Amino acid sequence: MYTNHVKPRRSASNRLPLSQVKFEGMWGAYQKLIREVTIPYQRDILNDAIPGAVASFAIRNFQAAAGLISAEHGGCPWQDSDLAKWLEAVAYALESQPDAALESEADGVIDLIEQAQQPDGYIDTYYILHPEWEKFSNLLENHELYCMGHMTEAAVAYFRATGKDKLLSVMRRCADLLYSRFGEGDGKANGCPGHEEIELALIKLSDVTGEERYLELAKFFLDTRGTSPNYFAEEAIKRFLAKHTIAPEINYSYFQAHKPIREQTEAAGHAVRAAYLYTGMAMAAHRTNDEGLMTACRRLWSDIVRRQLYITGAIGQSCHGESFSFGYDLPNDTVYAETCAAIGLVFFARAMLDCETKSEYADVMETALYNAIPSGMSLDGKRYFYVNPLEVWPEASEKNQSRRHVLPERPGWYGCACCPPNVARIYMSLGDYAYGRNDSTLFVHLYSAGAVSFSTPDGEAAIRVDTVYPWDGTVNIGVTETSGAAWTIALRIPGWCADPAVTLNGENVNVSDAESGYVYITRQWLSGDSITLNLPMPPRAVRANPLVRADAGKAAVLRGPVVFCMEEIDNGANLSALSINADAATFTTEPDDSLMPGAVRINAPGFRDTTDAASLYMDNAAIRREPARLSFIPYSLWANRGKGEMQVWTRIAI
Amino acid sequence: MYTNHVKPRRSASNRLPLSQVKFEGMWGAYQKLIREVTIPYQRDILNDAIPGAVASFAIRNFQAAAGLISAEHGGCPWQDSDLAKWLEAVAYALESQPDAALESEADGVIDLIEQAQQPDGYIDTYYILHPEWEKFSNLLENHELYCMGHMTEAAVAYFRATGKDKLLSVMRRCADLLYSRFGEGDGKANGCPGHEEIELALIKLSDVTGEERYLELAKFFLDTRGTSPNYFAEEAIKRFLAKHTIAPEINYSYFQAHKPIREQTEAAGHAVRAAYLYTGMAMAAHRTNDEGLMTACRRLWSDIVRRQLYITGAIGQSCHGESFSFGYDLPNDTVYAETCAAIGLVFFARAMLDCETKSEYADVMETALYNAIPSGMSLDGKRYFYVNPLEVWPEASEKNQSRRHVLPERPGWYGCACCPPNVARIYMSLGDYAYGRNDSTLFVHLYSAGAVSFSTPDGEAAIRVDTVYPWDGTVNIGVTETSGAAWTIALRIPGWCADPAVTLNGENVNVSDAESGYVYITRQWLSGDSITLNLPMPPRAVRANPLVRADAGKAAVLRGPVVFCMEEIDNGANLSALSINADAATFTTEPDDSLMPGAVRINAPGFRDTTDAASLYMDNAAIRREPARLSFIPYSLWANRGKGEMQVWTRIAI
Repeated sequence: MYTNHVKPRRSASNRLPLSQVKFEGMWGAYQKLIREVTIPYQRDILNDAIPGAVASFAIRNFQAAAGLISAEHGGCPWQDSDLAKWLEAVAYALESQPDAALESEADGVIDLIEQAQQPDGYIDTYYILHPEWEKFSNLLENHELYCMGHMTEAAVAYFRATGKDKLLSVMRRCADLLYSRFGEGDGKANGCPGHEEIELALIKLSDVTGEERYLELAKFFLDTRGTSPNYFAEEAIKRFLAKHTIAPEINYSYFQAHKPIREQTEAAGHAVRAAYLYTGMAMAAHRTNDEGLMTACRRLWSDIVRRQLYITGAIGQSCHGESFSFGYDLPNDTVYAETCAAIGLVFFARAMLDCETKSEYADVMETALYNAIPSGMSLDGKRYFYVNPLEVWPEASEKNQSRRHVLPERPGWYGCACCPPNVARIYMSLGDYAYGRNDSTLFVHLYSAGAVSFSTPDGEAAIRVDTVYPWDGTVNIGVTETSGAAWTIALRIPGWCADPAVTLNGENVNVSDAESGYVYITRQWLSGDSITLNLPMPPRAVRANPLVRADAGKAAVLRGPVVFCMEEIDNGANLSALSINADAATFTTEPDDSLMPGAVRINAPGFRDTTDAASLYMDNAAIRREPARLSFIPYSLWANRGKGEMQVWTRIAI
Repeated sequence: MYTNHVKPRRSASNRLPLSQVKFEGMWGAYQKLIREVTIPYQRDILNDAIPGAVASFAIRNFQAAAGLISAEHGGCPWQDSDLAKWLEAVAYALESQPDAALESEADGVIDLIEQAQQPDGYIDTYYILHPEWEKFSNLLENHELYCMGHMTEAAVAYFRATGKDKLLSVMRRCADLLYSRFGEGDGKANGCPGHEEIELALIKLSDVTGEERYLELAKFFLDTRGTSPNYFAEEAIKRFLAKHTIAPEINYSYFQAHKPIREQTEAAGHAVRAAYLYTGMAMAAHRTNDEGLMTACRRLWSDIVRRQLYITGAIGQSCHGESFSFGYDLPNDTVYAETCAAIGLVFFARAMLDCETKSEYADVMETALYNAIPSGMSLDGKRYFYVNPLEVWPEASEKNQSRRHVLPERPGWYGCACCPPNVARIYMSLGDYAYGRNDSTLFVHLYSAGAVSFSTPDGEAAIRVDTVYPWDGTVNIGVTETSGAAWTIALRIPGWCADPAVTLNGENVNVSDAESGYVYITRQWLSGDSITLNLPMPPRAVRANPLVRADAGKAAVLRGPVVFCMEEIDNGANLSALSINADAATFTTEPDDSLMPGAVRINAPGFRDTTDAASLYMDNAAIRREPARLSFIPYSLWANRGKGEMQVWTRIAI
């Protein structure tokens, strides 16, 4: 048996250039779809060129702000962020695969953004087109800092992808303006954004420019949050006094401003804001080795994954404020589970993984990336869910107002279209989540067919990954290039796998030596060396903690990282009448390429409750239990075959 | 075997004077509580004399409208109805038991109401105190006709109780005004109320005065509803044009105005409005022998009891608009189930029973009167629920906004306090629901200890009822007075009873001869004749139709007409982790006078799901099923022992 070398815990802060990561298989197909369909489609949306779609106004707002046309601001106050996220997705697309036409298009958009910027560095079309309003006077609601954050992320991504620094310079000027306006010094405002995002963006900007002031400003925004006196209250009083009225009550926890961030113990409020905040906190903790901040991050992480996480990787239980509610409150039918929130959770997980290489972070990334996030987009790449329910009854969505937000079919676009470009940017940057590097270690966090090359201190190295993961658990990793010097490959052992095995050139590797869920193999690799992960993925019947009331007496069907669900089209109406034999040994797996090439469905024996009675209530004996064959498809693929019921959690047969 | 005489179907339109009906046992205790505590307490509330309670303004509004004091109108536009319902409850209290002090108090209130009436008969303090607004210009929302209806009901009740006609004259003048304003004639408005109530009230007024025009006006209000062009739309356009704005969209089904009433097939919209409308429809159908209208009533009744009725007798599933939603959508946790709506359902059932003596109507009355309605009031008579959930998790009520309306404890009073006086008036008039008469037949619809006398064509007759119903199913009815001439007693066989038996002086009566659920016994009764109903009430495990998703795989525990529930105080926290053996033969009954004298609790073997894992999701094997003894108390008594969880539907053990 080969004894693998155990590496000391160390963070994987360095990303690989996306140009060095190629995906095939499911993720390759998603990236191709986004490149070929979603990015052009979203560009047309942003240009208001799709007849019948809700107007975006995003490009028009910049044209007007630049003085090129005369128009009022259109859309939400934070409409700029849609364009920024699209541009970020384009940057990742270009980084992984050059495309002169797309780059030229992006350059044109960047020229426009530069033209819209004001001399002092200010850039937010909502305020530029409303010169009568005071800038930075409503950080709580109007999201200037949020939009600037997204544009900063786009600038960093575009610089990395193309080496072009025009947008980066624009956003540096903007960051310099923010640095002059916000902070602890005299004449600076003690404010922070109502919707977090600028914090993580400033840290990325600091990383790429080496400018410490941006990191300092990010830390300021983080640490001033929730302190007393609360800036949001003072700002609101000022705003409302100007209108001779009284300030409304502010729900501080909605904005994660109910306490200083280091004292927050439960994930609270608007889930996307929370996730972006926690990501910024983890990035700051990583960059500054701030153990106190890291402790707060671990506490919030633990609250999410142990008490507030859907099995699909979704977060944000409540449609009221698109927010967290409280521990173990995980309703499946009135759920919110916004696509953007699951994306935000992946950001947080990835930032935590930079701090400490523990597979629990990658496990959550994987769950969200295979379930809650792809559920947000249709297979044609053009339709999107905000809300990703775990149970849908179309008649209730139509007729019961508390479920109106739970749509049974994906709409084409939204007036407030945060989710669609967010899906595009995360799928186009999958390389950042699947892999990482640290000195001479290549981390494989997530498995997907493809190829990766990276620079070791002693020269170039490359591997190929052959697998049909997530549809099968066999992953073959072949070394295709190496200098012959020693380097390490770190392989995550997925938490879902009960019986993992790893071989190196046919010899068993001791998986029980895995540290925090990673097997580290260090050697002088030779081209042709081959690692095989054998991650058996029999179907599983998973139960929720009995404290989760919504799932009491129910089981979810999973296989590997993939959560399955029943749809009406396969199982008939009234899925609640079905119950399942929870012994997963009775489940069978069946390939079904009609769902998606390589996909599988799971069939399970079960029962259907039925009665001849027309009454609402009856004796126990009046209910018959008839045998039924239940058929489950991957949750991420639901709602691609017409409107119908869907259900993740199935009653265990009584 | 005694062969009972089967009477032809005939309606029980005649009520017995409440002075001739005495209740003992549970209902006697409720009436005593309402008489001694609730009526005085509510009087103090209406006079704004309870420190700390939400201000009512009800009396003050009348004082101001009468010009006795100077004050603005306070409270909701329909605040008058609170006073009217209290006065109606007082009338029933006086009818069943004279009370000079209470009567004098009521006379004072009636003097005040008369003083507030305007010369043309108009009486509604909201508009009287807002002379700048046009009367009857917003029938949709401002509820003048609703308030007038309630005051008319009070007037009829007070006249019947005391023979005093001052309030009756006031409300006749008001009805005459309405007759001159509304109808099909020239110069009359084609309107009807946004909140139904005036219809049933005008029929009662017509009954007591013999004035056919009031019945005619009631029928007009009924039949113009939902016709095209819709009055509400025209009214709204007029109102909004006056403000130079556009009319909002009206949700007609919320007001039961989406179709003419004879075409309505599904119970829809605000549940109290709907129930009051359907009651008016059934009363009109009865008075006019209108078979078409009766068909519509039967259809709506059937939709409610077969598709939209909670097992407790509650209706109105949705907190959005306090309304019906759609068939089989019966959530237990986000439920509305307003106390007033269950009361309205009893009105509807009673009116249907007048049309046709079928026990299904009385079954529903009984269910609501033993469960959904008493749940609305605390055992001390001073605290009330609007919302009567079938499942409560206090933490969710506090932290999850979609359950904020589901309170775990009864508040003392409400700004819009429709339910508390509604509970008072229905319990003080229980005699109207328990008994009925028709020529020489005495109908016993509901069983309760007490005594009843009634006039047969040949003289006075009287019976005594000895029972501890609903805690035991043995009901002894003794004839205590009779002329010796033949008369009939009609006894309802409850639908919940699987094995009923009736004896007359020890001889079996043929229960299978029952017509539409009633056993009719005609004979020349002798004082001392004795009937015994033996209605065995073993605990039952009741299932919902599999189409009711919220109750899939669950059972409710019932005994006789009483629905049981588990509370946290008896069963520990997290009731959802408990499951029950659905074989009711394993249940045991145990007296528990601490809940209420005579009350029982039911104990049942079951299980508690538990785990040692701290994670949210786990393998099936990680969940242990430990034996547990479940203890159920009558649902109507919940939330009288502090705040905690409550649950009616329990998972059947897997």
